[in-house]
Parts: sequence; structure tokens; C-alpha cells
Amino acid sequence: MKRILVTGARGFVGRHVTPLLAASGYDVHAVTNHEPPNDLTCTWHRANLIDESQREALISAVGADALVHLAWTARPPHYWTDPENLRWLSATLELVRSFSSRGGTRVVGAGTCAEYDWSTGHCSERSTPLRPASLYGTTKAACGSVLERYGQQTGLSVAWGRLFFLFGPGDAPSRLIPSLTAALARGERACCRAGNHVRDFIYVADAAAALVALLESEVTGAVNIASGSPARIGDVARAVAEHAKRPDLLSVEPGPSQDAVVTADVSRLRGEVGWRPQVDVMARIDETVRWTLAQAS
Amino acid sequence: MKRILVTGARGFVGRHVTPLLAASGYDVHAVTNHEPPNDLTCTWHRANLIDESQREALISAVGADALVHLAWTARPPHYWTDPENLRWLSATLELVRSFSSRGGTRVVGAGTCAEYDWSTGHCSERSTPLRPASLYGTTKAACGSVLERYGQQTGLSVAWGRLFFLFGPGDAPSRLIPSLTAALARGERACCRAGNHVRDFIYVADAAAALVALLESEVTGAVNIASGSPARIGDVARAVAEHAKRPDLLSVEPGPSQDAVVTADVSRLRGEVGWRPQVDVMARIDETVRWTLAQAS
Repeated sequence: MKRILVTGARGFVGRHVTPLLAASGYDVHAVTNHEPPNDLTCTWHRANLIDESQREALISAVGADALVHLAWTARPPHYWTDPENLRWLSATLELVRSFSSRGGTRVVGAGTCAEYDWSTGHCSERSTPLRPASLYGTTKAACGSVLERYGQQTGLSVAWGRLFFLFGPGDAPSRLIPSLTAALARGERACCRAGNHVRDFIYVADAAAALVALLESEVTGAVNIASGSPARIGDVARAVAEHAKRPDLLSVEPGPSQDAVVTADVSRLRGEVGWRPQVDVMARIDETVRWTLAQAS
Repeated sequence: MKRILVTGARGFVGRHVTPLLAASGYDVHAVTNHEPPNDLTCTWHRANLIDESQREALISAVGADALVHLAWTARPPHYWTDPENLRWLSATLELVRSFSSRGGTRVVGAGTCAEYDWSTGHCSERSTPLRPASLYGTTKAACGSVLERYGQQTGLSVAWGRLFFLFGPGDAPSRLIPSLTAALARGERACCRAGNHVRDFIYVADAAAALVALLESEVTGAVNIASGSPARIGDVARAVAEHAKRPDLLSVEPGPSQDAVVTADVSRLRGEVGWRPQVDVMARIDETVRWTLAQAS
């Protein structure tokens, strides 16, 4: 495995994946549908992967051994219901087929914890049913199951990283940490709903490192990409308020009983892939809040 | 609902669907990727639905209210593992999106009992997990779940008919009844394996009638398309041998314990759609054997 094609390379996760791969000495070919950055550690390509001719031209031109496919519709909160999810599912299947037919051997795709039946609470790749509640989760679950079966049948090595609750610098403004931080920085009152709900949060650069470890392993099928250190949403909000030095402006309310706990079984990630985060989630939250406050000021 | 587009209209099921719709007074537009027949009851179109431009031109030209989508890769036994399943999944999602965006309101798609976890035995749309064992079943399950969610979200009315074990005139030569009939007609010994296994067999013209009833109903989501009268595979084989007047040439062996029973919960089909077969499955098997013997002689 020498030449690696990374799609969505300018996305929230992708921007942390390409530097890790480049630093490990791989020949990294990075794809974006926006203006490529001035970054000489990768070979940059500009392509719209939804477009068949652009997709085929890219796969043919790069001739990669491995594919890290992160591109998908991802505009929060619109992506949960975006009909574009269907086109990304189609484009992904065609992309992987094309990659495989041109000699590609290893694929890591980006799944989501939203594929699982959240009433289960603790989500295991082996035993938790997939029962997505959104179009996003449904298309991701469909994509993962089809690619896994396709890999088993053709010999293509396919791993599917189910990303849990990502946070970090550059997160969308509507998400938990940026929205709270922005409100408190403006001196506005902020309310954290579902404060008693428990989630597995993972720092975006850690998720990227876990995906790279997954790529370098021989593990196939679905693997939860999570910190393994669940936190209460209210505790995250309180950490934000303390760093913003405005705990007085924060109120924390309990949420509905539904989906109260969504955590990850990380035994595959730790035991088979051999990856675990080096820094505590709460410390990563501190970093993120400092970054967000610096951006706001 | 007046103008109905039927894909796969020359296929095993489709050829029974279009006459039923035409006889009910609908304006039927039938699609095939082969030479259209000389049949004035429908408006025939020739198109390869995998091809985006042909697909879009068709949807635009027809402007149908309803879509019965039966086209898929279906060459027995190759279709179980055919990588073309991925392209049919993609093409189907694009077809439905395009149909919906041009004002289409009702879709009936063709699913399969191969979507279910067969270890369950009796398969219910509501409670049996989907755990397909093949690429065909995996892509069909993915397609059904994505279209159902897409429909819930957009208001498009989508039903997904999960077809059980089809048989009838025109079935592929490798399948149970044609292969046994042909061997016995040639005076060769024939062995029925898994003779103790129980399946829900449904006559292909009955399945077509059930799909039409589903189309005309307001039922959405997955619906089992099955006779509701399970039969032992060995009893079907014995019926074939009796009609072929060569019971002496048939041996019936028991199968593995795995997948011994695959039957259908037909409460949605009977209770909500209001359809049940008018003729007993064993009588339909007799008809099929007579037809197959006539073809062979």
C-alpha cells in the first residue's frame, strides 16, 4: 500500500487525515470539490465525485492502491434529511467499483453511529441492530452493508469506520461546542438541552488517527470510531462555560428518555485495530473551546 | 393514478404485470432493454436504465404518476453474486429521485425474501431482522430501506414488495421445477436436495397480481409477496415427477438444518393490501409442470 486516494480531503475529518498519511511517507492523492490548498505534502485533485466522468477520470489518473473515502453530503444540520444522500450512496458504490476494477485493494469508508438502533444504548458492531432514524443514517448503513458484502465477495479489503460524536476546531457553527461558545462569548444566555444524555464524543483529529490506523490494519467490516470515554452532554456544556468564563450564563436541562445513552463498544478499535486516544476527551474539549474562543475574538 | 411506468416489463414478473394494468384501464408505459414486443395494449419504450441519459430521457418523456420498478440484474444463478447489483441499486435510487422530481407520486419496488435473516424461519416485515446472505439480498435490502426512508421524508408514497419463491411458465432452466421437469422428460434420474425444507412458493402471475393490488392500495413500506401456503420442496418435486409420469426417476434427500424453513407472514398482504391467491399453490405447480413439459416436447 503506497499510493492512497483521500476523498473529502478538505472536510472536517479529511483535513486531519491527509497530513497523517503524508507524514507516514505515503504518496497521498487528495480530492476536493473546492479550491485545493497550497499544500505540497499531497498531490491535490479537484473533482466532483457525483459526476461520473470526473469520478472515472480521477480514479483512472491516480491509480491508487488504497482509498479513504470521506466525501459525502455533510452540511449540518441539513445533511440528516438531504436528498443528496441518495446521490452520495450511488456515487460511492460506483467509486469503489471503479477503484477496485483498476487494481485498488484496500478501502476505508466513513460510516456513522447514526446507523445503529439508538434504543440499544451501547452500540456494538457485532450485536447492535442497524435501525437508522434519518435518511443520512439509512444511506450510510446501506452503503456500509453493500460495500462489506461486495468486499467479501470480490476480495477487496473493505473497512467501514462508524464515526461517533465528532467535535473539534472547524466544526460547524450550529453544533454543540461552537454554538454554546459563540453565545457565551457574546454574553448571551445559553441553554443546554438533553444535559443528562450520554454520548461517546471523539476529537476530530483523533478520529482521523483512528481511521489511519484502521487503514493500516487488515481489519475488515464495521469498526466503531469512538473515544470509548462517554461523557454527559451537560458536562461538556459546563466545560465550555468554564473555559468561556461565563458559567453564570449556562442553564442545563434534562432531555427526553429517548436516546438517553449512545455510546460505543470500542473493543474492535482497541483490540483488533490497536488504536486508542492518547489524550483525554475533556482535555480535547478544552482545546476546542480555546480555539473557538480565539476565533470569535 | 392514471399513467403507470413499468420497468423490467419483459421480465419474469413484469410480463404478467403489464396485461393486468392495461386490462384495468391504466395508460401503461412499459420499458425493456430488449426488443419490445408487438403488443398494442401498452406504450413500449426501449431503454437501458443503467445509462443516466437514457434513464432521464425516459422519465422525462413518459411523465408517469406511478412507477412499478421491476428491472434489476436477474440471471439465475449469477444474480446472487453479480457485481451489477451495485449498479442496479444506484440506478434505482436515481430513477426514483428523477421520477419523484417530475411529479411522480407512487412507487412499487421489487424486494426479495433474501433480504431477511433466514435463521428466523417465518419472516415478518415488522419484526424479522434484515440479514441478507448474498450481494443480491444486501443490495435489495439497502434499496428498500433507503427508498422507504426517502418516501417518508419527501411524501413520495413508496411500497416495497418482498417477493418470495417464484415459479411459473418461463422460469429459468436452472430453477427447481424447470430443471426437474427437463431431466425427467429426458428420462434421466433426478435428485431433489433439501426435500424436507419448507418454502413459501408463489406463482409468478399471482405475484404480479399482488404487486398490482399493492400499487392500487395506499400501503407503504415493505410487504411480503407470498402465497401464505408453505410447501415442502420434496412435495413440489414429487408433484413434478407425478405430472411427468416418472416418479421412479426421482429421489428426494433431506437438506442441512440451516435455512430449513423460509416462510412469509402474509398478514400485511392479506389484511392491509387485501390480496390473497385464488388458486391453490399445488394446482399452480401442476399448471407450470404441464407448460414446461409441453415446451420440452
